[in-house]
Amino acid sequence: MENIFTDEYFMKKALQEAETAFDKGEIPVGALVVIDNRVIAKTHNLTELLHDVTAHAEMQAITAAANFIGGKYLTGCTLYVTLEPCQMCAGALYWSQVSKVVFGASDDHRGYRVMGTKLHPKTEVVSGILGEECSVLVKEFFKKRRK
Amino acid sequence: MENIFTDEYFMKKALQEAETAFDKGEIPVGALVVIDNRVIAKTHNLTELLHDVTAHAEMQAITAAANFIGGKYLTGCTLYVTLEPCQMCAGALYWSQVSKVVFGASDDHRGYRVMGTKLHPKTEVVSGILGEECSVLVKEFFKKRRK
Repeated sequence: MENIFTDEYFMKKALQEAETAFDKGEIPVGALVVIDNRVIAKTHNLTELLHDVTAHAEMQAITAAANFIGGKYLTGCTLYVTLEPCQMCAGALYWSQVSKVVFGASDDHRGYRVMGTKLHPKTEVVSGILGEECSVLVKEFFKKRRK
Repeated sequence: MENIFTDEYFMKKALQEAETAFDKGEIPVGALVVIDNRVIAKTHNLTELLHDVTAHAEMQAITAAANFIGGKYLTGCTLYVTLEPCQMCAGALYWSQVSKVVFGASDDHRGYRVMGTKLHPKTEVVSGILGEECSVLVKEFFKKRRK
């Protein structure tokens, strides 16, 4: 039987979260935490609504997943996020020891890679999953905002 | 008249927060956000209690200060923290555009400087304020925990 629980499958759900953020006027980024093919956190960026720079989708997802697990380490978990994490989120992922990070679009200006932030050495990284769709949504947001 | 509102004055208050964290069995780090000599956020590390790696003193202080201000930018504010910020907290401070960061003890292993994280170019940094006192408290914590 074909495995339906692919990275694309979960990234589509993260993208739906990003679309929800878009509709609220937030920079459209969505995130998910998955353990054993089960979604235990589903969040989107809320920095505008909450007036809080720490309210990135990933930060909320880490907090929600840890709350679900009842422990602060996300070993065995995968975090899906539509946009490459920033320094802050990569720093939080580092502390969480999350097993895998999957992101969609790259962020060549503020992404953790260009900024030189370190993930945990045990964290596997997959990039570019639905990258084009994730990127188009962010570009559309900034195009709309400039008008 | 002598100005009593020195960096040492506010760092002492941050150190009191760190001591509260110590008493709770948390890695003893305390933080403050100050604007025009007024304390608008006073927090300490709560990662153990909340099972949440994002619950560093600085992160909570940023959220609380932004909540007080009603906006996400901390321009005009100074953040005091007893220990050098990590990647995550420096990343959050970057987004907040905080005007000044004052820290006590250096963290040569996980501090933002050795990890290569960038603060906002407009953020002024002062280090080593009550550095010895802040450092002793952290060392005492780990000594106690190893027992």
